[in-house]
Amino acid sequence: MKRLLALSALVLLTAPLAAQDVPPPVTPASIIAAAPEGDWKAIDPADLMVMTLAPDASGAPRVVTIQLIPPPFSAGWVANVRTLAKAHWWDGTSVYRVVDNWVTQWGDGEDDEAKAKPLPPGMLEVPESEYTLSGPTREVCSGSQCVRAPGIVDAIPAEVALDPYAPNVAFSRGWPLGFADGFSRSWPLHCYATVGVARDLSPNTGTGAELYAVIGQAPRQLDRNIAIVGRVIEGIEHLSALPRGKAEMGVYGEGQARVPILSVRLGNELQAPEQPKFEYLGTDSESFARYAQVSANRNDPFYRVAAGGIDVCNLKVPVRRVTGE
Amino acid sequence: MKRLLALSALVLLTAPLAAQDVPPPVTPASIIAAAPEGDWKAIDPADLMVMTLAPDASGAPRVVTIQLIPPPFSAGWVANVRTLAKAHWWDGTSVYRVVDNWVTQWGDGEDDEAKAKPLPPGMLEVPESEYTLSGPTREVCSGSQCVRAPGIVDAIPAEVALDPYAPNVAFSRGWPLGFADGFSRSWPLHCYATVGVARDLSPNTGTGAELYAVIGQAPRQLDRNIAIVGRVIEGIEHLSALPRGKAEMGVYGEGQARVPILSVRLGNELQAPEQPKFEYLGTDSESFARYAQVSANRNDPFYRVAAGGIDVCNLKVPVRRVTGE
Repeated sequence: MKRLLALSALVLLTAPLAAQDVPPPVTPASIIAAAPEGDWKAIDPADLMVMTLAPDASGAPRVVTIQLIPPPFSAGWVANVRTLAKAHWWDGTSVYRVVDNWVTQWGDGEDDEAKAKPLPPGMLEVPESEYTLSGPTREVCSGSQCVRAPGIVDAIPAEVALDPYAPNVAFSRGWPLGFADGFSRSWPLHCYATVGVARDLSPNTGTGAELYAVIGQAPRQLDRNIAIVGRVIEGIEHLSALPRGKAEMGVYGEGQARVPILSVRLGNELQAPEQPKFEYLGTDSESFARYAQVSANRNDPFYRVAAGGIDVCNLKVPVRRVTGE
Repeated sequence: MKRLLALSALVLLTAPLAAQDVPPPVTPASIIAAAPEGDWKAIDPADLMVMTLAPDASGAPRVVTIQLIPPPFSAGWVANVRTLAKAHWWDGTSVYRVVDNWVTQWGDGEDDEAKAKPLPPGMLEVPESEYTLSGPTREVCSGSQCVRAPGIVDAIPAEVALDPYAPNVAFSRGWPLGFADGFSRSWPLHCYATVGVARDLSPNTGTGAELYAVIGQAPRQLDRNIAIVGRVIEGIEHLSALPRGKAEMGVYGEGQARVPILSVRLGNELQAPEQPKFEYLGTDSESFARYAQVSANRNDPFYRVAAGGIDVCNLKVPVRRVTGE
C-alpha cells in the first residue's frame, strides 16, 4: 500500500528520516501548525449554521457546519438565510439533489409551486446587482472605524496572480475574492465546499431557501451569476459522499430516498457544548502569506518539481475547530 | 425546487420560451450535440480498462470505465497497468482509501511488505524523467507518418491561456497537457477523474499496481510529480460517492469495509455486448474550438456575466458511449 499520496503532515510523520537531526521539511501543514495564536481569528458563532441530517445507515450522526460569509461580502441572501434558520424553516426539509462533480442541493424540494412550503415573513428580494460589491459605494466597518474598499483586500499572493475567470484574485477576511476595475468591484468565488443560492433563470436571484454546496472542480463560471452565502467548514463529506441523483437534473428519483434534514440552527442559538467554535487563519497574516508561498512551491520530499503557482481555489483558507476551554 | 442550477441542455428544455420561433440558446451541450460525426474519434477498446466492483448495498452493479492515456503521452506505467490487467492481478484486491476533495485509491492495500501480493512478471521500473515528454526526442506516429513534437499540440484556445501551474496549457488527441520550453516539453494534467499511480517518496515512481482517481478540485501541484495513466470516463460516481476513510491518511479503518474489486479487464479482452465502445470529441476539431469558446463565454438565459476564460480542467473533453449498431 502506498499511503504517501497526501498533502498532509502525516506523510512526514510516517516517512523515515535519514538522521534524527535533519530539520523537518516545510509544508503547508507545518506552516499552519506553526502559526502564532494571534494569526487565528475567531469566527462568531452567529456566523455559523449547523445543519443536522438524519443519521446514516449505520446510525452515525451527520452534522454539517457552514460559515456564512461576513460583511461587507454578505448581501440580502445571507439575511434571508438567517431569517430561515431562525424560523427553523429547513427542519423537515431534505437534501434532494446530488450531481457528481457539481453540487449537492437541499431545501423544500417541492416541484409543485402550489404545494411549496411557505417562506417566513421578512424575506428580502435581492437584485442581481448584489452579486458584486462596488467598492466606492460600500464601506468596511470594524468597530467605529470605516474604510472604503479597496481596503478590503488583505493579500494578493503573486502565486495566485494568474486566473482565467477574474482580472485579479485575492483574499480578504478569510475569503477568496475576484476583483475588477482596479479593485473597485469584488465578488466571492465558487470553490470546493462553497455554499450558494439555487435559482431559476436570470434575473431571478433566488431567496436562499434552496441552497447548494459545491462538491467538485470549482465551477468558477458561476461567479457573479449566483449568490454565494458561505462555505462548509466541517462535515462536507456528509454532502459529497451521498449517492448521486438518478432523475432529471440529478434530483433523487424513484427508489432513492431523500436525506432528511432534522434541523438547521445558527451557531449562537445553540448552547455549549453544541455551540460550534471555529477559527480561521487571518488572510492578512504573515503565516497566510507564507502558507500561500509554500503551497505554490512544494519542495518537501514528496515533490520533485514545484509548480510555482497555485489556483486560488487550491489555496484553501485554513479553518480549525477550537476544543477544550 | 430550483432545478435550474446545471450546465445542461435539460435546463433549456425545461425553460419556457417566450416565442416558439426563438432559436434555442447556444450552450456547451448544444455544441456537443451538433458536432458532426466526423469530429468524434473512436477510442480503441484496447485503451479502455473496465473495473467491476462488488454490487452496492442495494445490489446494483458498479462498473468503472477508465481510458488509458495513449501514445506518445503514455510511459512505462501504462505498460505496467496493461500487464497487471492482462494478469487479472487486481481481481480480489479492493478500494481501500477515500479522502474527501482528494482521491479514491485502490489495489492490494497491504501494509506489510512481506504479505504484499506478488506482481506479475514483466513489470517495468520507470524513472522520474518519464513524467514529462521531451518533444525533440519523441515522435508522434499516425500510421506510417511520424512528426516531431510540438506537432502533438492540437489547439490552444485563448480562453484557457491563463494557468498558474504551467507556462502553457493545450489539448492534444483528447487530453489536456501542460507545456514548457517553447512547447518542447509536455505533460498530462491532474483534473477531476484523472487516474494516477500512487507512490512512496521521490524518487520512487510507483509501479501502477496501486492507482487513484481524483475526486475533487484538480490537484495540479501533482503534475510532473506523479505518473498519470488515464481518466475515468464512466462510473466515477462509484468512486467519488464512497464513504470517506476514517483511519490515517483516509484509509478505510475499523468498521469500514473495503470495496471488493471483482475484476479489472482491458476492453479488448471483453466480448460484445460487454466490450466498451466510446468516442471522444477530437480536440483538433472546429467543434471543440467552438465548445471551448462557448464554455468560456456563457450567454444562455441562465447567465448574466460571461467569465471570458475557463480553467483547463473545467473544459472537460466530451466523451460518449456508442450504443446500438
